[in-house]
Amino acid sequence: MAPGTGVVLAERYPVSPWEEVEEAVSAAGVAFTELRGRTAEDIAAFLESFAQRIEDRREEITAMAERETALPREPRLNSIELPRTTSQLRQAAAAARERSWSMPVIDTANNVRSMYRAIGPVCVFGPNNFPLAFNSVSGGDFAAAVAAGNPVIAKANTSHPGTTRLLAEEALEAARSTGMPKAMVQMIYRTSHEDGARLVAHHLVGATGYTGSRRAGLALKRAADASGRPIYLELSSINPVVILPGALEERGEEIVKEYVGSVLMGTGQFCTNPGLTISLSGESSRHFIEAAGRGFDEAAAGTLLGPGVEASLRTAIGTLVSAGAERVNTSGSVGAGCSVPNTLLRVSGERFLIAPEMLQEEAFGNVGVIVVAEDSVQLKKILNELEGNLTACVYSHSAGKDDALYEEVEPILRSKSGRLLNDRMPTGVLVSPAMNHGGPYPATGHPGFTAVGIPASLFRFAALQSYDNVRHDRLPAELRDANPTGRTWRSIDGAWTVGSAGG
Amino acid sequence: MAPGTGVVLAERYPVSPWEEVEEAVSAAGVAFTELRGRTAEDIAAFLESFAQRIEDRREEITAMAERETALPREPRLNSIELPRTTSQLRQAAAAARERSWSMPVIDTANNVRSMYRAIGPVCVFGPNNFPLAFNSVSGGDFAAAVAAGNPVIAKANTSHPGTTRLLAEEALEAARSTGMPKAMVQMIYRTSHEDGARLVAHHLVGATGYTGSRRAGLALKRAADASGRPIYLELSSINPVVILPGALEERGEEIVKEYVGSVLMGTGQFCTNPGLTISLSGESSRHFIEAAGRGFDEAAAGTLLGPGVEASLRTAIGTLVSAGAERVNTSGSVGAGCSVPNTLLRVSGERFLIAPEMLQEEAFGNVGVIVVAEDSVQLKKILNELEGNLTACVYSHSAGKDDALYEEVEPILRSKSGRLLNDRMPTGVLVSPAMNHGGPYPATGHPGFTAVGIPASLFRFAALQSYDNVRHDRLPAELRDANPTGRTWRSIDGAWTVGSAGG
Repeated sequence: MAPGTGVVLAERYPVSPWEEVEEAVSAAGVAFTELRGRTAEDIAAFLESFAQRIEDRREEITAMAERETALPREPRLNSIELPRTTSQLRQAAAAARERSWSMPVIDTANNVRSMYRAIGPVCVFGPNNFPLAFNSVSGGDFAAAVAAGNPVIAKANTSHPGTTRLLAEEALEAARSTGMPKAMVQMIYRTSHEDGARLVAHHLVGATGYTGSRRAGLALKRAADASGRPIYLELSSINPVVILPGALEERGEEIVKEYVGSVLMGTGQFCTNPGLTISLSGESSRHFIEAAGRGFDEAAAGTLLGPGVEASLRTAIGTLVSAGAERVNTSGSVGAGCSVPNTLLRVSGERFLIAPEMLQEEAFGNVGVIVVAEDSVQLKKILNELEGNLTACVYSHSAGKDDALYEEVEPILRSKSGRLLNDRMPTGVLVSPAMNHGGPYPATGHPGFTAVGIPASLFRFAALQSYDNVRHDRLPAELRDANPTGRTWRSIDGAWTVGSAGG
Repeated sequence: MAPGTGVVLAERYPVSPWEEVEEAVSAAGVAFTELRGRTAEDIAAFLESFAQRIEDRREEITAMAERETALPREPRLNSIELPRTTSQLRQAAAAARERSWSMPVIDTANNVRSMYRAIGPVCVFGPNNFPLAFNSVSGGDFAAAVAAGNPVIAKANTSHPGTTRLLAEEALEAARSTGMPKAMVQMIYRTSHEDGARLVAHHLVGATGYTGSRRAGLALKRAADASGRPIYLELSSINPVVILPGALEERGEEIVKEYVGSVLMGTGQFCTNPGLTISLSGESSRHFIEAAGRGFDEAAAGTLLGPGVEASLRTAIGTLVSAGAERVNTSGSVGAGCSVPNTLLRVSGERFLIAPEMLQEEAFGNVGVIVVAEDSVQLKKILNELEGNLTACVYSHSAGKDDALYEEVEPILRSKSGRLLNDRMPTGVLVSPAMNHGGPYPATGHPGFTAVGIPASLFRFAALQSYDNVRHDRLPAELRDANPTGRTWRSIDGAWTVGSAGG
């Protein structure tokens, strides 16, 4: 269905029975072995060819994505998300070529050498909210899995199968034209939940990357865990933002703008949307909430990704309201197609502490919740009730007026988030080697890994392999004495270097 | 019970009810927060003080360990295992002090910075076979968890509670004398299985390290997985050794000696014991097996770690024999106390392929299985049936006669093992930064982590934490522009350096 119009789109996509899924896994197993014979340069060439092909077909791809997701072509799909996608693919190519991601470690005295190497066929389940940059067949997980040397089995998100088809066509053509194994990229439109669970638990599967709802993700996690296969999840997150009083006094209006912009951006459908904001009771906090409410009313309500997202969002609002949250703004106007009014909710700290779980319900969409804490003691109690999140943020006075309180809240937020921000909203996840798009459970399944940031994201799809007394000419190039590229960073006898071992 | 004499030892150790376990977890949670206020130097001082104290009390500790485990004081406990233990603690101290383990990554252009930091209270379950070097309160997991900044809740192995008590006393005294939080080290003698599962799933627990039986380990894994808490397992492994024909022709006698020594060392009770050896049918293989059988008969049978180990070993032999393995050697002589005769079994490749699971049953003790493959095709079939292992090894002709076959078996073994060896038996796990004491499931629970090797083993007990736009004076020292030690390796804008950021 086109979420922007409610019209059922003409394309039909098949549901794969288990036999087809198993065939895909077997083929991926063969491709995995074949990939061992390809060079880092081959893999880089594939990724770069794919990026170029996406750009060459950008009109068709972004038109299809707009139709399927109702996300605007401009400024979003064409000038932000597509360039992000091709940039990720090219960064992944550069990482594959440089090889430093594999972290070669050489102990010359004992002739023991180790590095990270491809883990095996990777299943990627992409989310509904980024049809290009997190698409299972072109997004961050895909790029990381391939750069680490793995074939990918991509499970298309059912909300944008046509976009995924176009991207998969280009991936296949890029694979063909760069001489990659035939089954390096495979796509499945849809399977039963049972078959999805069997897939991630298959003994030929190396690992799985999943971005999406908590419920579906945890079902896959159970299956993968039971078979001992790594699964990396990016689940729900409400990304708490704590706004300290000094910051509001100093630059309240500015923060209102940042907040309203961030919470309504993309109709609120970002993993790092600031769903929960906490401030301290007082005059400046009251002004902030009133102004934010006006901002919510003034902004046009956007179109959601589909009827499922709309239904979930209405349910979540119901849960929040039943737990004591009250609506701040008044506008009831909605956007085209699947839409709910921009909704700002507020709740007292006291109420929050009565039902902290319900009030952390993720409202995926154009909804914000502001908790007003009575005092700093209650503020800390609230923060201690928070679940693990992708991000946490603190706004504070620029000249130190909030510093004492910052010192108290920082350790709590730090332990509950993968990325801690100061004075900046969490939306916008930079592709930086220092990025962590991850965090403590239940934001993800393991706090040691990031889904965004190259080369860090490649680790998820690699196994540590040690070579003990292995004859020199049998070692992977990365572990031989000579540096294979002249610029691969390796740890030799405790020091990082681009030089040679034993030279 | 003393396994060497069968005498029930006088000491009695309590079983902890859940209330006590929960109290320990709460206290560890407080200690975790307090540890944030300690410096890297403080942690290093604790580890070094503890190492010194173990050495100061070595007579008493090794006497107790000998009594509880029947492992000989000399050469094993006193001159090998105790020095390994204190060396690990000192290497961990050095890693804590240098801080490179935390892998600071600085992106100056975007002011995003990340590093690995302590994950939270770590539960350690130690195995029965290394009362000092893998002890839950002094071994590799303990050292890694503490060096990464975490408090430890140590679950004593029930086969050597007295040794654990002595080590815990010294750990506590070291903590006291170096001003560590009181609950940084806590010990539990024994709990019910249910309470063990509740412990690893507790929301205040950061992670768990477990070394021991597959059955108990997988029960803990289920509990930890369900609550989203990392657990690192080191489970069973039979460490396949492939001996190619050229190697046997060239140096058969030498390899017999290495094999017999390795498989019977420590009465075969090592994680990396070469339990399964595979050779190709032929004259040299027949000689090898005969000579190994003689070696098994000539060597005195050792004492096992306890009656449970003896019973499991007898059961495993029964399983192997019922699946078609035949005894090669004849001696029925046993050692003192808990003991079974040295047992060498052989089985044809054909038989192996009929019951590959049963014939991979781990026989933890002084038992070896040799599979004789008909030809290289059958050899590869056998290897393809192997489960994940900690190690895999290939012996081959030194001048290249086996190279073609090596090329064929290496990819199979590589994908099924954490550490690949050439021409060397797998026993002896060096504490090297390039070591991987890990491997694919079911040898461990995740192929990306090692239990031995510093600093690599610390990663298991750390979370990735990113700082985005955080004010400079609020950053951890490791992420500020200046290098905190002058020798901490950091990745700044893509290059590893001990220099400063931003010139």
